[in-house]
Amino acid sequence: MSFMLSKNKIKFIKSLDNKKSRDESGQFIIEGNKIVSEFINAGWNINLLVAQPRWTETFPERALQNIEEIIDVENNELRKISLLKTPHNVLAIVNKPEFLINWNEILNNLTLVLETIQDPGNLGTIIRTAAWFGINNIICSPDSVDVFNQKVIQASMGAILRVKVHYTNLIDFMNRISENNFPVYGASLDGMPIYNYDLSANGIILLGNESSGISPSLKKYITQKIKIPCFSDTTEGIDSLNVSMAAAIICSEFRRKTRGYSK
Amino acid sequence: MSFMLSKNKIKFIKSLDNKKSRDESGQFIIEGNKIVSEFINAGWNINLLVAQPRWTETFPERALQNIEEIIDVENNELRKISLLKTPHNVLAIVNKPEFLINWNEILNNLTLVLETIQDPGNLGTIIRTAAWFGINNIICSPDSVDVFNQKVIQASMGAILRVKVHYTNLIDFMNRISENNFPVYGASLDGMPIYNYDLSANGIILLGNESSGISPSLKKYITQKIKIPCFSDTTEGIDSLNVSMAAAIICSEFRRKTRGYSK
Repeated sequence: MSFMLSKNKIKFIKSLDNKKSRDESGQFIIEGNKIVSEFINAGWNINLLVAQPRWTETFPERALQNIEEIIDVENNELRKISLLKTPHNVLAIVNKPEFLINWNEILNNLTLVLETIQDPGNLGTIIRTAAWFGINNIICSPDSVDVFNQKVIQASMGAILRVKVHYTNLIDFMNRISENNFPVYGASLDGMPIYNYDLSANGIILLGNESSGISPSLKKYITQKIKIPCFSDTTEGIDSLNVSMAAAIICSEFRRKTRGYSK
Repeated sequence: MSFMLSKNKIKFIKSLDNKKSRDESGQFIIEGNKIVSEFINAGWNINLLVAQPRWTETFPERALQNIEEIIDVENNELRKISLLKTPHNVLAIVNKPEFLINWNEILNNLTLVLETIQDPGNLGTIIRTAAWFGINNIICSPDSVDVFNQKVIQASMGAILRVKVHYTNLIDFMNRISENNFPVYGASLDGMPIYNYDLSANGIILLGNESSGISPSLKKYITQKIKIPCFSDTTEGIDSLNVSMAAAIICSEFRRKTRGYSK
């Protein structure tokens, strides 16, 4: 246990606000009691824990054995390194996990495929929603927001422990999906109301960018075009549903229809 | 048309980042091409428009007649006054609307009642979702986040033009609802799966605070406890659905069941 937050360490921690640093070091930051506790309790390897001693003391010794270094600090020191406006009482640095796409898993569950998702809050909330609905994989195009961005992690509320988020070329991914004749449900304004569909238990749910939707190069892989009907009596001031709202409603509809809820 | 952004004006605009200033002046800020265009096109009275001349020129003269003052600026001047990190090319100041609760409207539609909602992104997204599902009123407890907070307005994507957000004592409101024997659906972890419910076309959807849920003083008004089932095979790292996700799924279920989608 050490008691010093050196200048170099502060510099390194702060650098992890940038994707480039996260990519180069293979590490990212988690902040806050809830999420750090969950990582500790899940036995995840933690490179550095920076916390107030009274926070760390609440854990049994064996829970802390996967932590390489613990630095005791007071609250005002956490303020120096926090990436958040209102710093939490604990911050940790962990290694980025590396997942391979498990095709057996993909072909036996629902999977969300996100094209160029930009807003970190949206990605974080979609991860949290996926966890709730038992969806274990999310596939993102490489130009999507980084899952290890602090805002994504905060919005995911610990669900990044449960859901594997992959970054890969979506054309290649969809080619393989289509070779398997696996259904691809695409959210599209010219689709059919999702409520009327006989949805399959397993499949791909494809969601597009916040402003531009699904690009033509991916649209052609859609086997079922779905939409969530608008119930407003006017369209003034109504553009579309937020992409994470759409994801939640679509996931809910899939589970409702294929997990024994018939009404 | 004027060409000067005086120090006093800059000070006033910046002050509107605070709820106290918004309450005292009765005014709030909207930023960005999309939302300001929608306010102009809806004929909303605009006290001050600060924009690049080439932005304002895209509107026909009569569209601009409800604007009291227009100040032409360049982009770097907008940076001085924007409440956002990345300023938009236009900013406007408008009067806060004052709505009275229309009980006839409440008793003939769905209405969302939000207790102590804290996160501006959540409220904004719920407003956007309500607009999509034809819900015209949202009732918030007085300690909820202010609807004229910049982050709420950004997340609502212009839907605050469509949905009336009221702040009122929820006990008084619910007393009146209960006198009318109007159904109150409360989201609660000990509820019945919403998929199995015979939902009514009109009613109250009551949602609680992000961390503490619905308080006991309001729980007693619930006539139907509903929940969105969790489909995960483990609960590790899964706490709950985000409140705006829950709102979206619940609104979707109500409309699906009561607007002619039977499947």
